[in-house]
Amino acid sequence: MSAALPRRALAEFLGTLLLVTVVVGSGIMAQELSPNDVGLQLLENSTATVFGLGVLIVMLGPISGAHFNPVVTLADWFLHRKLTGSDVGIYLVSQIAGAIAGAILANAMFDKPAVGWSTHDRSAGHLLLGEVVATAGLALVIFLLTRAGNARVAPVAVASYIGAAYWFTSSTSFANPAVTIGRAFSDTFAGIAPSSVPGFVVAQLVGGAIGLALVAGLYGGPLRHEAA
Amino acid sequence: MSAALPRRALAEFLGTLLLVTVVVGSGIMAQELSPNDVGLQLLENSTATVFGLGVLIVMLGPISGAHFNPVVTLADWFLHRKLTGSDVGIYLVSQIAGAIAGAILANAMFDKPAVGWSTHDRSAGHLLLGEVVATAGLALVIFLLTRAGNARVAPVAVASYIGAAYWFTSSTSFANPAVTIGRAFSDTFAGIAPSSVPGFVVAQLVGGAIGLALVAGLYGGPLRHEAA
Amino acid sequence: MSAALPRRALAEFLGTLLLVTVVVGSGIMAQELSPNDVGLQLLENSTATVFGLGVLIVMLGPISGAHFNPVVTLADWFLHRKLTGSDVGIYLVSQIAGAIAGAILANAMFDKPAVGWSTHDRSAGHLLLGEVVATAGLALVIFLLTRAGNARVAPVAVASYIGAAYWFTSSTSFANPAVTIGRAFSDTFAGIAPSSVPGFVVAQLVGGAIGLALVAGLYGGPLRHEAA
Amino acid sequence: MSAALPRRALAEFLGTLLLVTVVVGSGIMAQELSPNDVGLQLLENSTATVFGLGVLIVMLGPISGAHFNPVVTLADWFLHRKLTGSDVGIYLVSQIAGAIAGAILANAMFDKPAVGWSTHDRSAGHLLLGEVVATAGLALVIFLLTRAGNARVAPVAVASYIGAAYWFTSSTSFANPAVTIGRAFSDTFAGIAPSSVPGFVVAQLVGGAIGLALVAGLYGGPLRHEAA
Repeated sequence: MSAALPRRALAEFLGTLLLVTVVVGSGIMAQELSPNDVGLQLLENSTATVFGLGVLIVMLGPISGAHFNPVVTLADWFLHRKLTGSDVGIYLVSQIAGAIAGAILANAMFDKPAVGWSTHDRSAGHLLLGEVVATAGLALVIFLLTRAGNARVAPVAVASYIGAAYWFTSSTSFANPAVTIGRAFSDTFAGIAPSSVPGFVVAQLVGGAIGLALVAGLYGGPLRHEAA
Repeated sequence: MSAALPRRALAEFLGTLLLVTVVVGSGIMAQELSPNDVGLQLLENSTATVFGLGVLIVMLGPISGAHFNPVVTLADWFLHRKLTGSDVGIYLVSQIAGAIAGAILANAMFDKPAVGWSTHDRSAGHLLLGEVVATAGLALVIFLLTRAGNARVAPVAVASYIGAAYWFTSSTSFANPAVTIGRAFSDTFAGIAPSSVPGFVVAQLVGGAIGLALVAGLYGGPLRHEAA
Repeated sequence: MSAALPRRALAEFLGTLLLVTVVVGSGIMAQELSPNDVGLQLLENSTATVFGLGVLIVMLGPISGAHFNPVVTLADWFLHRKLTGSDVGIYLVSQIAGAIAGAILANAMFDKPAVGWSTHDRSAGHLLLGEVVATAGLALVIFLLTRAGNARVAPVAVASYIGAAYWFTSSTSFANPAVTIGRAFSDTFAGIAPSSVPGFVVAQLVGGAIGLALVAGLYGGPLRHEAA
Repeated sequence: MSAALPRRALAEFLGTLLLVTVVVGSGIMAQELSPNDVGLQLLENSTATVFGLGVLIVMLGPISGAHFNPVVTLADWFLHRKLTGSDVGIYLVSQIAGAIAGAILANAMFDKPAVGWSTHDRSAGHLLLGEVVATAGLALVIFLLTRAGNARVAPVAVASYIGAAYWFTSSTSFANPAVTIGRAFSDTFAGIAPSSVPGFVVAQLVGGAIGLALVAGLYGGPLRHEAA
């Protein structure tokens, strides 16, 4: 993470863009090719996401840290204080802009309108609980690995975690405010109605905070520390 | 495993909780989304479990050893004598409590009653043979890797083993008394009727003992030894 | 890559041959065994390709660099100037000959005519956009890993990328001019009509160039450099 | 591989036993749970085999080399001359006995007759070509990795290769005379009629020889050498 800020911003933009392209694009492909079984669609969608997310982290991690997720950026800032406040702002803007661009690119590749607002309501309470659990788990994975000096396995571990969380959380684990915003821009399998976005984002922030509290409980000592 | 006992107990509790949440939650999702093919449900369930279990071991291993399983804790105590008797007791209580909490969390995320006793009878003799084989194999994997100094690959190896054992054993490989108890608390895909639990637990203990005997036969020398 | 040129040419021939055999052969198997769900066919096809491609790279990489792809060979030549012009020519001929032989071998194994021109039209504009994205992403993966000194993870990363790109691009990600030519020789699941080949190849070359430009933008400094 | 011969024989027996249990057992489970799509059955069967085979190699490799396959033992003897002739004989007997025991164990776990001769004819010429290709590829993977000093990735590479070969060869890639014999003992998904066994074994031996010839062509120099 010694790259200059503009290159790190480009990495966060491009990584989040491609992540949303993977999620939305594979969702469209699955929906079109396996129309009779929603579970099979989700299996296709989650398998593609595992592969894509792991690669994005390993290839962009050396440049920006491969956050692609405002919860991760905020938690990293809170714990390690390596990012400055303006770094954080630029990361968040890059992630959100990338997520929106990624949905538009997926729409274009599959011959859909560039922007189609999703009509998929995801506002039920148990789905919000799902997002809390999903994001708490994600924070646990990332920051327990960092604390133990095992960050090198993060590409496989984070991708695997998301591959499980697609299935074990009721919300299919968005776990990422930027990606949630991006997925509102495609009225396809992976979409979320704009009206459901705020609830998801709040649940994700709550989950992230719970995750950090669990990390502190598991390791003891000060929550804020310098990573290895 | 130099963490203080309360933090190791928290790790065992949380790890077993999340393991059961993964197993039960992904089972519910699979059952709801792929209602017409039980094999596809099991493929979705087993794939999610492979990903989730591997991550849990890699992230909590440095704290507690990532047993999440009374058979593993008992075998580790028998072989290595690093855990004291009271450590063992606390590990087992943490695992069982975590497993029950994990089933309840999965039920809640999917909008089911917090506790629903499973009605899935699993008492046939060939299923018990399946549990013996499943648990013997699990003990083989863990303790052969330890003996060869390859414990660092355990997260991937143990998760892969379970991914295979879901399919090659007739019982779908519970192979874990704590998880078996937890799975009695959800009347869904991954559930087990309370009346079938004792048989499974006995079969798992028998399987664990057979696994240790095979390790001794394969390596010769004293069965009890100090791990590297 | 210190092997003599004839052995490197044999490695490129054999690797591209087996890659096309994997893609075309598993496509035929999927089509015959899962006739009722095209998505399931693609999942079977993409899973087999992930496994096969990763193995081919790890086993032939030490001999030839395991390009199996004219875009990779041309980009490697452009960036690193380790290959001479005649090396490049021999690599490209070996790759294309291997790809054609691979399709013929797959046809023979599945009791099809040795050569059957594909009738699968793939000329729609959004599919060409898919190929641009697919190949840009492939170039990003390979050359970002090289720049960061992480080439040792390329077998897993490249295979995973293709596993995702099968699903998130509308074209199912051929991303390889030699493989595209080979796939024209089999009128089965993975085929492409000869008339659609030139469009795909042009899109792949454009995508490769975009990928290299993004690598330059992400790392700054001169685009051409010596790899570690 | 410094273990005493009886322990190495036990490892070969147990490893081949469990390999056949994985292949046959997961085949039965797949057939029973996904009765309407043979491709889905094969996907379940091949996924379980990938996971199981990789674990068996990593856990038993330090004891016996984890051959589990007469073609591998014979090729290893031919290339490296580390095994004596009587070692080879004991390896082959252990593998074949293990394979038969594995089929019987799978039958028993799934409540089938202990021995049921398969009625699945697999004698067509294009299937034999499939076995030649499958076994040549397996020999390539194993001995190219050995030559390049990359044997540590063999558990993942060999398992991945088989995961691909299930799909890209018309024969679903038995690629192993001992396993072929074992699979004749179960009249289920993975079975092979006894009358088809000799043809498969001959094809596998031919494939193994072709694989070694390709290794020699790719590396040059003497075919027989001391492995690193």
